[in-house]
Amino acid sequence: MSSDSFKTSVRVTWADTDAAQVVHYSKYFVFFERAEEEFYRSLGFSFVDFRNRGLWFPRVEAFCQYKKPAKFGDLLEIELTVDELKVKSVKYGFKVTNDETSDLLALGYLVVVAADRQTGRATQIPAEIVEKLKPFHK
Amino acid sequence: MSSDSFKTSVRVTWADTDAAQVVHYSKYFVFFERAEEEFYRSLGFSFVDFRNRGLWFPRVEAFCQYKKPAKFGDLLEIELTVDELKVKSVKYGFKVTNDETSDLLALGYLVVVAADRQTGRATQIPAEIVEKLKPFHK
Amino acid sequence: MSSDSFKTSVRVTWADTDAAQVVHYSKYFVFFERAEEEFYRSLGFSFVDFRNRGLWFPRVEAFCQYKKPAKFGDLLEIELTVDELKVKSVKYGFKVTNDETSDLLALGYLVVVAADRQTGRATQIPAEIVEKLKPFHK
Amino acid sequence: MSSDSFKTSVRVTWADTDAAQVVHYSKYFVFFERAEEEFYRSLGFSFVDFRNRGLWFPRVEAFCQYKKPAKFGDLLEIELTVDELKVKSVKYGFKVTNDETSDLLALGYLVVVAADRQTGRATQIPAEIVEKLKPFHK
Repeated sequence: MSSDSFKTSVRVTWADTDAAQVVHYSKYFVFFERAEEEFYRSLGFSFVDFRNRGLWFPRVEAFCQYKKPAKFGDLLEIELTVDELKVKSVKYGFKVTNDETSDLLALGYLVVVAADRQTGRATQIPAEIVEKLKPFHK
Repeated sequence: MSSDSFKTSVRVTWADTDAAQVVHYSKYFVFFERAEEEFYRSLGFSFVDFRNRGLWFPRVEAFCQYKKPAKFGDLLEIELTVDELKVKSVKYGFKVTNDETSDLLALGYLVVVAADRQTGRATQIPAEIVEKLKPFHK
Repeated sequence: MSSDSFKTSVRVTWADTDAAQVVHYSKYFVFFERAEEEFYRSLGFSFVDFRNRGLWFPRVEAFCQYKKPAKFGDLLEIELTVDELKVKSVKYGFKVTNDETSDLLALGYLVVVAADRQTGRATQIPAEIVEKLKPFHK
Repeated sequence: MSSDSFKTSVRVTWADTDAAQVVHYSKYFVFFERAEEEFYRSLGFSFVDFRNRGLWFPRVEAFCQYKKPAKFGDLLEIELTVDELKVKSVKYGFKVTNDETSDLLALGYLVVVAADRQTGRATQIPAEIVEKLKPFHK
């Protein structure tokens, strides 16, 4: 059974670049998060909804492997997949490609945990969110 | 005779916010520049073209007045106008509004100068660029 | 009568630079704020104290004039002065110089307003803060 | 035989925080790089020296595990170790602790590769750099 993936695009702005004339390596983590936000928006909810339920989704692990540099003005495609779906955490995979050349630029992941905003403790991901994530689970 | 304006939109991402739970004041300058880049793209050229002509466009002045805060997830409309068009410099005006509420969030400007990349000296803006900017000059 | 000024230094890191191989123009506003924070720390208080009093200090205006570029690895000196001290707002002036060459790189200012965190309205700057700022008022 | 480690400190500035009122997860990668830069400076060289030799040091992998949040105004200690030292690459380990409480906040690593600026290909790390890194190799 195949799984769905979510794709969004990001245009590299001048402020994303560094003196090596490529996108600064830390910015990929901003792109990953932006894709995650757009993914939630596409499913009909947002970080703000989580907050209203007394939840938030801190990142507990972040990883990126850099294959080829991205440059100013490049249009990047960010593909998000749900690589692991546990009771209290989700691992999102990210694949960054150059939209024009289709070159693979970077691969990465984020592990995010559902946490109670009062206690800070890990808690269950609400059932209706789990339902929405399932089709994207590899 | 009325002048044209250019509009683009920016979605506030989590990395744009600060601990006051609003967009960090320095990020407006990133948004201004992003609007400027999209403006050039809409006219058919880019910072890269300038570079290939041995030119670049350093900022010599930047200003922003903050009216109301922008928050995570807000869709912002950035309007760009050409407020002054001189032989060697352009002053761009920016108006940031909340796309949903139409609230005015910020007003600002950037003065950019055409500079020779070899000598660093201010130089004339190429005639065909001036022609493209003219319709946006207030 | 002469006034005091406050000085702090900032080392340019790779993430501060852009593809023109100079510090991105938006980063000066981060440097200004960092100097402001160090200034408060030197006076014995912080943004956190303001928050505990139900206050915060949003920026209402920001300006910077760029004279010469700063580069990766440069040690910058940031000088802060209190240019205006009003009942509800302060205007801080900033002067950025290259510590090694003494070249003037940038001049700027920030206008910050004391605001009630509940209502969002401008309010008086607490008297003991005003007392501490006075010696720095030009 | 024990190995040396390098330590530097970073003060959390307002621009490092996000709307969860903690340091944004992408900023740890900026802190890692800043520690790396200070490490090179302590050894007597810099990214600029590498560039002058026709080399640069792109990051090929970046990882961070987040243990506890850092907040505005916190003084962080960043400890750098040389975890792997290969012919063409170095793996730096990073440990971020709260300087006041000694709480462990984050653990991470960066893999950087020596690359020829002309060809972009991986190349040998110059011998005198290897010599300087050896005492820090675990």
